Amino acid sequence: MARPQKLLTPGPTSVPPEVLRALAEPVLHHRSPDFAEVFALAQERLREVFRTQNEVLVLTSSGTGAFESAVVNLLSPAERVLAVSQGEFGERWQALGRAFGCDVVPLTYSWGEAPAPGDLRDALAKSRATTVFLVHSETSTGVVCDLEPLLAVCRQAGALSVVDAVSSLGAVPLETDAWGADAVVTGSQKALMTPPGLAFVAVSDRAWERAESATLPRFYWDWARQRRAQAKGSTPSTPATSLVVALVEALGIVLRDGLETAFARHRALGRACRAGIKAIGLELYSPDDDSAAVLTGALTPEGIDAVALRLALRDRHGITIAGGHGDLVSRLFRIGHIGHVTIDDLAEALTAIEVELAAAGAEVEAGRAAPAAFDAFGSVAPA
Amino acid sequence: MARPQKLLTPGPTSVPPEVLRALAEPVLHHRSPDFAEVFALAQERLREVFRTQNEVLVLTSSGTGAFESAVVNLLSPAERVLAVSQGEFGERWQALGRAFGCDVVPLTYSWGEAPAPGDLRDALAKSRATTVFLVHSETSTGVVCDLEPLLAVCRQAGALSVVDAVSSLGAVPLETDAWGADAVVTGSQKALMTPPGLAFVAVSDRAWERAESATLPRFYWDWARQRRAQAKGSTPSTPATSLVVALVEALGIVLRDGLETAFARHRALGRACRAGIKAIGLELYSPDDDSAAVLTGALTPEGIDAVALRLALRDRHGITIAGGHGDLVSRLFRIGHIGHVTIDDLAEALTAIEVELAAAGAEVEAGRAAPAAFDAFGSVAPA
Repeated sequence: MARPQKLLTPGPTSVPPEVLRALAEPVLHHRSPDFAEVFALAQERLREVFRTQNEVLVLTSSGTGAFESAVVNLLSPAERVLAVSQGEFGERWQALGRAFGCDVVPLTYSWGEAPAPGDLRDALAKSRATTVFLVHSETSTGVVCDLEPLLAVCRQAGALSVVDAVSSLGAVPLETDAWGADAVVTGSQKALMTPPGLAFVAVSDRAWERAESATLPRFYWDWARQRRAQAKGSTPSTPATSLVVALVEALGIVLRDGLETAFARHRALGRACRAGIKAIGLELYSPDDDSAAVLTGALTPEGIDAVALRLALRDRHGITIAGGHGDLVSRLFRIGHIGHVTIDDLAEALTAIEVELAAAGAEVEAGRAAPAAFDAFGSVAPA
Repeated sequence: MARPQKLLTPGPTSVPPEVLRALAEPVLHHRSPDFAEVFALAQERLREVFRTQNEVLVLTSSGTGAFESAVVNLLSPAERVLAVSQGEFGERWQALGRAFGCDVVPLTYSWGEAPAPGDLRDALAKSRATTVFLVHSETSTGVVCDLEPLLAVCRQAGALSVVDAVSSLGAVPLETDAWGADAVVTGSQKALMTPPGLAFVAVSDRAWERAESATLPRFYWDWARQRRAQAKGSTPSTPATSLVVALVEALGIVLRDGLETAFARHRALGRACRAGIKAIGLELYSPDDDSAAVLTGALTPEGIDAVALRLALRDRHGITIAGGHGDLVSRLFRIGHIGHVTIDDLAEALTAIEVELAAAGAEVEAGRAAPAAFDAFGSVAPA
């Protein structure tokens, strides 16, 4: 296998060494007091990260699985859903809703736009949908939407909200209870600094009530079954116990310095990345403001292939970044700065980008990006 | 946390140290050539273990999730399924089929019995079910059924078979292709010596054909979507990459000595465990023959509490075994000997059982079980 890669991707992200060490502890049995203790701690820490008093369900799956669990527990066949999309993941949830026979009313924005509360209010009034799908952080574009007013619109309309917070939770503010989100879905492998394989859903009282009457078929994803097992310190079927142990370690790191510090760090990493990109002279694809705290997208200079740039970063520098989509595949690259990422990691990547762009013939003067990034970062506690 | 436990349970099982070390390697990105290489190796080794030329799908879930994937990909609402049950897991699959609105015709045996091909033939003729659920190894009782003739009956009747091989694959012979099984489901955390969190399904050509017309809703479990992604060296949504890396290491260990050696070792461990239990003077609950290669169940002497015995093993010896169910909870204990278990592990557990039974007032002479177990084990290569 090639050298280990530094992952500056929108997930999975690199994981702190102490989390990897926890992962390598001897396997715990999932019906044992040892696991029950770890699991209780995981739930306690998850509730802190989700900012909720409600139950957080721990599923062995990707974030997509956890989103599916929200669909099959909250909806009935042909039920109307307003599925807001501003990029790849929004489109995925529209497809998922359709796969389950829901009456999916799309509210689709161009990739790169952010959904507006007024549009949502109108669409809800017109569609009378019972449920709204929202994407908090859309990593295909770097857009993090302003979730609080969107959730307020849902509540005013009496619709339940299902929030994809897979790449946002722990990176940018999300007040599950205070903002009244009904099902908030995330995964282990982004800001929660744990390898992929676990996903989580925080469920509001209103959502639990709805789940009682929702009739889409479910077994593995059945929240009620899950809640009964969690009350006894386990899960209905065997969970990824080693990942739960690693998660507890990772959440301990996140919470040690506090969520506010994590949010400040992600904001500062976003500023640093944008400053570096601009110092190189590249055009930003993601928003040029503090909302872009999760991911920075940029375009290569005309005539310089973004795919070749990514390969060079990977093969010559051991740095993995993400690519673009559709027409933008040859121009767009995306730098994730989520979770266990330092300003030095970012400066290293920006410098490598400078070097490789110059090598590819772009008019780039090396040595500008890193100082600009450090300067914009300021002084925030490291991960 | 308490001392690490030696897991002599029907899963999750203890994992070899080199597998734990692989688990702690830096996280791979799931859309990268590094991961594609590991994933290809995982699939190659899985095909060897499954004894199939067909695609093996790699899901991030427990075994229950993988079984659910077979249900939603192979069946349509109200379709008739013959669900054979001889214990806890058989009952689970009956419940799962019902949860998805299938017309589940149960063929239910008493716990401890093994299904008979004649019964299956009659039940299929009467029910005209299109699909049969079978449990290969039922760890609630230790019964491993004679799968080959049952699968032959399914094929003769033109019914597809879905086989729960969660605790059998890699421990006892299962010829997916040669016996004509249509969907064989297993998990990472038993004989495949990997922590829990991954599950696998081998899918026959007939099953792929059925999946094209089956209409139960699916997205996360969608086999066609999964196959398209696997053809590109990944999965549709983020898999548990660290567990895939560990799996490759574990399957390498299994295959290094060959599957036949693994089968011989599990048979010998079963013999050794039964010999030890009998030397203590206890009554066997699981079958007293080589079919019981996965798990040994035994009853404590009248008046000696099995729950207290298990707690004593756990707290005083660092050995976790499994308990009983229903009326048998106070008498039955179950020793799993799956995967990374040596005769020395087993002898240690049997000795601890002897000691604790004597301490609890049973008429047991310590020092008999281990020699009997070693004697019955013979000379088989270690795990």
